[in-house]
Amino acid sequence: MTRQLKNDIYGVYHLSPPAELNDIKTTVIRPATEKHIKKYLHQEVYLIQESGEDYKNITLPFIESQSFSIQWVYNILEKKAEADRIVYENSDPDNGFILLPDFKWNQKQVEDLYLIAISQKKGIKSLRDLTADHLPLLRNILKEGTEAILKRYGLRGNQLRIYLHYQPSYYHLHVHFTALGHDAPGITVERAHLLYDVIQNLEMDSRYYETRMLTYALREDEALLKSFKEAGKC
Amino acid sequence: MTRQLKNDIYGVYHLSPPAELNDIKTTVIRPATEKHIKKYLHQEVYLIQESGEDYKNITLPFIESQSFSIQWVYNILEKKAEADRIVYENSDPDNGFILLPDFKWNQKQVEDLYLIAISQKKGIKSLRDLTADHLPLLRNILKEGTEAILKRYGLRGNQLRIYLHYQPSYYHLHVHFTALGHDAPGITVERAHLLYDVIQNLEMDSRYYETRMLTYALREDEALLKSFKEAGKC
Repeated sequence: MTRQLKNDIYGVYHLSPPAELNDIKTTVIRPATEKHIKKYLHQEVYLIQESGEDYKNITLPFIESQSFSIQWVYNILEKKAEADRIVYENSDPDNGFILLPDFKWNQKQVEDLYLIAISQKKGIKSLRDLTADHLPLLRNILKEGTEAILKRYGLRGNQLRIYLHYQPSYYHLHVHFTALGHDAPGITVERAHLLYDVIQNLEMDSRYYETRMLTYALREDEALLKSFKEAGKC
Repeated sequence: MTRQLKNDIYGVYHLSPPAELNDIKTTVIRPATEKHIKKYLHQEVYLIQESGEDYKNITLPFIESQSFSIQWVYNILEKKAEADRIVYENSDPDNGFILLPDFKWNQKQVEDLYLIAISQKKGIKSLRDLTADHLPLLRNILKEGTEAILKRYGLRGNQLRIYLHYQPSYYHLHVHFTALGHDAPGITVERAHLLYDVIQNLEMDSRYYETRMLTYALREDEALLKSFKEAGKC
């Protein structure tokens, strides 16, 4: 341990922890696509204001032109992978979901608890596709997901941040559950949408997410940003 | 290195990095006062779902019972303090504001740019008090604040995160401007409300913030949490 500076009661030190206190958990993606690599590089970010029309004219054609594989999601839904990791399942094909730990969580402590609820129903790409028809699904995820987390991990609903991303990183509906005190990635106001608010908005107006201006950030190298620039919208 | 799981192209591994790749910087405070210890102690946080009725019955009486001094805000508005720090002013008593750098920003680089717009008009406590009558004020802050930041610091509107806090840390209307790439405190979905969304909501319904269920987090030691607990709402 070496000291770098000392001022009154404050000191800054450098040290190397012993191996047993220093287990590093890492995720390997192999083979990684260009998109995987870009996800982890530092990039300038720009705010997009996407109207319902912009979604139809720019974002939806972009999503449909991409072939970002969600085979791994289907593997989970079909029990071809990670079946032993499932924390809770509601098997209803329309209003059911599978709840399991996110890869980022090692499941050893609840302080950084992170689970994902994945819709059984395919074809709901994101927040933009949600209507009042999906309220039973969303309410199941909220109620049963919260109950399953209390039962398994002992955290109550008021200790959880439950939210969707827009844009999501994959276009199959899923909901994030993180410990409220955990500074998880993607919980900022320009990306996360609280499930409570999503339900409240759809109760008020079934077409809320079809018509609403949604604001989000895109990194300089994201192909969707290029589409907005080409459309003169950024 | 040991493998924990494998699904399609994704694998999770555990490893111990060599010492030369694993220098840890730490701050030591010695002796530490009670106040130092409390600052670094983990506080449990709880989510509150505050209805319009809860605001009237619990939160508003709490705010009114506190003697949160906002003299420092009035000092700025009356040019008794920080007059030399003002970046932009619209002096209209109803729809004007003063824009100045937040104390957290050293103004040396735009990567962590942080400014605050403070309403000239007194008595607008928070988001909850906003109605369609305040749209001219909010639109001025958005338009003129963004223009002033472009002129002085060179960042465009799509490189800024512009938002209000609920709960705010002081009950005089103010709007935060931070660099979009800056991971500033208080930008999480359970605290920040994008000004674009606030304007959109008030355009849709003048009573939106009077009636809406608003979700936010409170720390275990916050007095407002006690009020919610006493009301059996937490």
